[in-house]
Amino acid sequence: MNNWSLIDTNFEESYQLKETLYSTANGYLGVRGSFEEGVSNNIPSVRGIYINGFYESEEIVYGEKLHGFPDRSQSILNVIDTQEIIIKINGEKFSLFSGKVLFYKRILNAKTGIVTRTIEWESPKKEIVKLVFKRLASFEQLELFLINCSIEAVNFEGEIEVLSIINGDVSNIVSSDDPRVGTANAKALSVIEMTVDNNASFIEAKTKHSNLKVVGGISHQFPSNFTETIQKDKDKFTHIFKGNIKQGASINFTKFAVYTDTNRHPNELKENQSIIRSVIKNSFNYYVDLQKKYLDDFWEFADVKIEGDNEMQQGLRFNLFHLVQSVGKDRWSNISAKGLSGEGYEGHYFWDTEIYIFPFFLFTNPKFAKNLLNYRFNILDFARKRARQMGHNIGALYPWRTIAGDECSPFFPAGTAQYHINVDIAYSIIQYYKVTDDLDFMANKGLEMLIEIARLMFHIGHFRDSDNKFCIDDVTGPDEYTCIVNNNYYTNVLTKNLFTEISEIYNNVKSKHENILNSVLEKLQFQNSELTNFSKAGKAMFLPFDEKRNLHPQDDSFFNKKVWDFENTPKENYPLLLNYHPLTLYRHQVCKQADTILGHFLMENESSLEAIKNDYNYYEKITTHDSSLSTCIFSIMANRIGEYDKAYNYFMNTARLDIDNLHHNTKDGIHTACMGGSWMSIVFGFAGMRVVNGKLNFHPHLPKNWTSLSFKINFKNSILKCNLSADNFEVSLLTGNSIEILVDDNPMMIK
Amino acid sequence: MNNWSLIDTNFEESYQLKETLYSTANGYLGVRGSFEEGVSNNIPSVRGIYINGFYESEEIVYGEKLHGFPDRSQSILNVIDTQEIIIKINGEKFSLFSGKVLFYKRILNAKTGIVTRTIEWESPKKEIVKLVFKRLASFEQLELFLINCSIEAVNFEGEIEVLSIINGDVSNIVSSDDPRVGTANAKALSVIEMTVDNNASFIEAKTKHSNLKVVGGISHQFPSNFTETIQKDKDKFTHIFKGNIKQGASINFTKFAVYTDTNRHPNELKENQSIIRSVIKNSFNYYVDLQKKYLDDFWEFADVKIEGDNEMQQGLRFNLFHLVQSVGKDRWSNISAKGLSGEGYEGHYFWDTEIYIFPFFLFTNPKFAKNLLNYRFNILDFARKRARQMGHNIGALYPWRTIAGDECSPFFPAGTAQYHINVDIAYSIIQYYKVTDDLDFMANKGLEMLIEIARLMFHIGHFRDSDNKFCIDDVTGPDEYTCIVNNNYYTNVLTKNLFTEISEIYNNVKSKHENILNSVLEKLQFQNSELTNFSKAGKAMFLPFDEKRNLHPQDDSFFNKKVWDFENTPKENYPLLLNYHPLTLYRHQVCKQADTILGHFLMENESSLEAIKNDYNYYEKITTHDSSLSTCIFSIMANRIGEYDKAYNYFMNTARLDIDNLHHNTKDGIHTACMGGSWMSIVFGFAGMRVVNGKLNFHPHLPKNWTSLSFKINFKNSILKCNLSADNFEVSLLTGNSIEILVDDNPMMIK
Repeated sequence: MNNWSLIDTNFEESYQLKETLYSTANGYLGVRGSFEEGVSNNIPSVRGIYINGFYESEEIVYGEKLHGFPDRSQSILNVIDTQEIIIKINGEKFSLFSGKVLFYKRILNAKTGIVTRTIEWESPKKEIVKLVFKRLASFEQLELFLINCSIEAVNFEGEIEVLSIINGDVSNIVSSDDPRVGTANAKALSVIEMTVDNNASFIEAKTKHSNLKVVGGISHQFPSNFTETIQKDKDKFTHIFKGNIKQGASINFTKFAVYTDTNRHPNELKENQSIIRSVIKNSFNYYVDLQKKYLDDFWEFADVKIEGDNEMQQGLRFNLFHLVQSVGKDRWSNISAKGLSGEGYEGHYFWDTEIYIFPFFLFTNPKFAKNLLNYRFNILDFARKRARQMGHNIGALYPWRTIAGDECSPFFPAGTAQYHINVDIAYSIIQYYKVTDDLDFMANKGLEMLIEIARLMFHIGHFRDSDNKFCIDDVTGPDEYTCIVNNNYYTNVLTKNLFTEISEIYNNVKSKHENILNSVLEKLQFQNSELTNFSKAGKAMFLPFDEKRNLHPQDDSFFNKKVWDFENTPKENYPLLLNYHPLTLYRHQVCKQADTILGHFLMENESSLEAIKNDYNYYEKITTHDSSLSTCIFSIMANRIGEYDKAYNYFMNTARLDIDNLHHNTKDGIHTACMGGSWMSIVFGFAGMRVVNGKLNFHPHLPKNWTSLSFKINFKNSILKCNLSADNFEVSLLTGNSIEILVDDNPMMIK
Repeated sequence: MNNWSLIDTNFEESYQLKETLYSTANGYLGVRGSFEEGVSNNIPSVRGIYINGFYESEEIVYGEKLHGFPDRSQSILNVIDTQEIIIKINGEKFSLFSGKVLFYKRILNAKTGIVTRTIEWESPKKEIVKLVFKRLASFEQLELFLINCSIEAVNFEGEIEVLSIINGDVSNIVSSDDPRVGTANAKALSVIEMTVDNNASFIEAKTKHSNLKVVGGISHQFPSNFTETIQKDKDKFTHIFKGNIKQGASINFTKFAVYTDTNRHPNELKENQSIIRSVIKNSFNYYVDLQKKYLDDFWEFADVKIEGDNEMQQGLRFNLFHLVQSVGKDRWSNISAKGLSGEGYEGHYFWDTEIYIFPFFLFTNPKFAKNLLNYRFNILDFARKRARQMGHNIGALYPWRTIAGDECSPFFPAGTAQYHINVDIAYSIIQYYKVTDDLDFMANKGLEMLIEIARLMFHIGHFRDSDNKFCIDDVTGPDEYTCIVNNNYYTNVLTKNLFTEISEIYNNVKSKHENILNSVLEKLQFQNSELTNFSKAGKAMFLPFDEKRNLHPQDDSFFNKKVWDFENTPKENYPLLLNYHPLTLYRHQVCKQADTILGHFLMENESSLEAIKNDYNYYEKITTHDSSLSTCIFSIMANRIGEYDKAYNYFMNTARLDIDNLHHNTKDGIHTACMGGSWMSIVFGFAGMRVVNGKLNFHPHLPKNWTSLSFKINFKNSILKCNLSADNFEVSLLTGNSIEILVDDNPMMIK
């Protein structure tokens, strides 16, 4: 097994799943791995191309609509289709579902960023052709998606006809009973203009409600002895290439598909045409080289080497590659729960970004991390507006799920009620500052977000009468099997973090950027007493704790509930959310993922190691891992408490969740949070890394069947190379200043 | 003021509200008080005729649908319109919005059951006509709705044309943002047959999804010198009557409208025709007499006389009249939140029936009360099915809102989560038995319901580890401003009641109806150990109580929450539910109605009077009475603790809530629960009546501005007449056996 690649040799199996796995994306554009020529009708397929942040908005229908329920949805759209290429050999149409397939192999290569599909096909008339399709979504030219196709006439000669299509008649998949899939209106785009310019054809389409437009353009490189004609039909252009091929000869086509949208391209059609004119001058290989170079730079810092475990190595690289494919690279986009690989969760951005994906970018390629925070800053006004809708007269409440900034969660108990999104974002801003020392960002954007978030959290909490503890009532923590509770441990501990850290950040900004600070404070009409309040609330924060048992309940009432009857729950009833009414779940001690364990991971110093161990052992028994965000945290914390076999097993269920389709829904898209979680399991788990008092602290422990583990960490602009073997942990400085780290709490200078 | 009547002298004001107030119904059929001739287009109107239990079902759309969410709605339908009568005077069409209205008066008379509208109208050509419309929905012939119209030519002679219409082109009102109104599909009925038979015309229509059909038929009595022709248009028939009138003369028309539906009439068209043939033989006055007789019987037991307070007297009689108009009289129907007077709440039946309306019927006309319980028995299988959907393998869970038996609540936190509906029904079954001694009913129906309910409640609760108390987690009590809580006082105390009482009922049934009992137990596969479990759980039931403050929290966490900032809440923000997100309400100590106070009223012996007083004073401060179910309970309990002025004030807000449109939404329909509550405020409040240890106990106290109060009570088939004056309380026996009662806890024999 080449652990840089994913290989498919059975085209008939799990087609829709593989459309996800072999998707090609660059953070702006994402193309599902559908076959250019299509598949037979009985094979389930979601053929799609998505633009990050490009969405349609529909009215959300409620059986009973209460005040503050979001009015409108936002759903990522399947945009103009440019995947289609039909090949005819002496009039016979190529299809894997007719004739005879002599050879089939598809490879996704994470090092080159290219998906290659190689086919040897015998037509019903026994003419054998060898086809190689290569596709890439360019990291250097985000608007560009390329398909290169070579055709070799193995045992015949004659006419080749290639039909390359751009089609504006596209739909999203429609609703299902699975709440994890979206419910968008199927046909949201309508074609408004079709033009041809210098053998390039362009289709412009617009949405009905969100007032966005998208242009798709295609142009081609093809053999000089071929003719090109362009045929226009309703909503589509077909470029028809005709010519002859000799036996044994090869010919080569490249389809250049360019996308522009009105978010990023105010003159969407002109800009598209201009990009097409520019890119068509370059060869396919030119972009292949650029792609490789871009990914070389990425892997230089991002790669994690696992020796002695090819499967895990492959899973991890696959995951990190999909993360760089998925992450938004401009202020309109973030990273959605499914990346750009499918329509699951409507393309929404969740807290997954901050808690599961952000750390990977922060410690390897911090520019991506910064962009993710910029996105949050850009939607801050939406968060302020949302707070007012909820009835809060101060602060900002970030949307639980959104694309453009509006709250889109139609089910508030496991949606809007998850106020922790606010402190998750605060946590990542604070982490960003601790790891990068980027005080400019804090002055210009970070502190403003922190203040607005802190205000909101202070506003919704209160000092309890009985003991003056600061309490936060009626929120939902990450665990959606227990909703609307008081003093959720996770929410409270992360709020405490914010209340505790904000003063120092405030003072640091004040000392270096007083003017900027003053203008922010004026804009926010910030009172100094607020800072005092935050600090007071931080100190008084109530963290639920059962002293007798030395255990943290997930919330005030959790331990008073009945434990779920796992023994009498048949296997096919998992995930429970698809088989029990939410109230029945809420009524029991049962976790989709364990809030308290995650809280301990992020805020380890708030608890004794003894209590952490107890909690781990308690919650492990009642956690179903029905959430794909669960196992990575259990892997990390199993390492923390010395349960190394468990740590490895949880990692296995994390690192290959999509490749092995462990949750049976990868067909709807990859699980980006789990992918980020697999990196976290390595660095925070096996290497046991934490940021403590401004320094990196490692508690490394290599899984017993691994030979070695190595990765790089960017900390305050120093690049460290970390190498862990069974009996040794080495850290060396690649670039940047010398820094002091700790290994198993022992200080060590890295020069 | 005639306190048997409601009088309208301003036809231009609040038309839609008055359509509700002047509605005419008999428990099967309900007709809103629209003008026969219609109104001008700028006047908001919901013209409707409803059949109790006749509904359409649509798919419920969810933005995010979780397991166990109800699939389909049920909405009461506006059926075939027979209200329309157009009158032309020498070619001029009568309308209150043209010409000149010289006199206008509409009277609803609760003693006769007739609404009379008297008009003197001058046409644009100065011809003056006097019109009297009388309408009734017959209590004796439930399918029959009658309009009688007399026309007097005051200052002219000439041609009169009367157009009497039956119209199958009807719609429901469409959704709004107010969750208290429904969201039915507007046009649900389609006409499938139109026939004429002996000068009667019939329209048959059917629903698309619920597979129900309805037939409307009309026939007329008219002056012998008039001609009748019938004109057929799309979906409607117009009966055209033409003739001449002399100056000073009067002529008289009666429109007989008959409704049949496939629930009650398997041969709906034939039965309709047969009823029409039979009723048309009788005069309008024949039905007027029957109506009076029926209501005389009703009022004989139901009337409450208040001397010295005409306004309250009027309000109360208006309420009781609407209750007898609204209550279902067959096994297909119950009493909906809006009666048959409007489309609010989609015509659903709620717990309102059992807790607010049932007592009035139970103590005055127990046959109606029994029918309400029969309805619950008839939908028991739906409740069993619902329990399974929720994930409970035993027992029955009654739907929070329904027409035909399926749960129709699309918002579960203030819907399905209100498991108290189950114990509310159990409470009313137990009360029924205590007041009527009807052991036959208990053997055949009552006990089976009690067992299935008790099983469900036992199944969802559990004995808490820490102290072995029986707890019920994650339910919502009646107060919808605090949802999904643990150990809701109200739910727990009513469950305790069921667990405590069921054994004795079981034993009583066993002693007299052992065979019936055995067949029920076999059918239910009932184990004797279950009875032991119920009793154990009853004894161990946890009732939240703050010993230090001698107060009952509404649930485990209520007192830990922040008190709502009433001071800074502007008046226009009430009702809060229309202005704050539910989470923001849940997060505070604020009640739409006070669960604990209601719990004390129903289960007074579970608490000391001291604690009840404390609770009253505490909850009164934080209750907004945004629910129309709130003030009656506060009135009763204010009386209980000697706060007599408050008791009177709350009663004022109860007794005239619809007449004075205090909640600003009576246009959508009357508030039947509040109407029942006004009777409860009298009998349980001012007379302080309770059933204690099988006896009636009174604690009477007359409001200071009243001269006297009298009412009758049916208790174990004895009819008592109770008369309360400032310094005396007299109880006398009208019929039945002598019984011992208590007055201020002192025993007294009534012979």
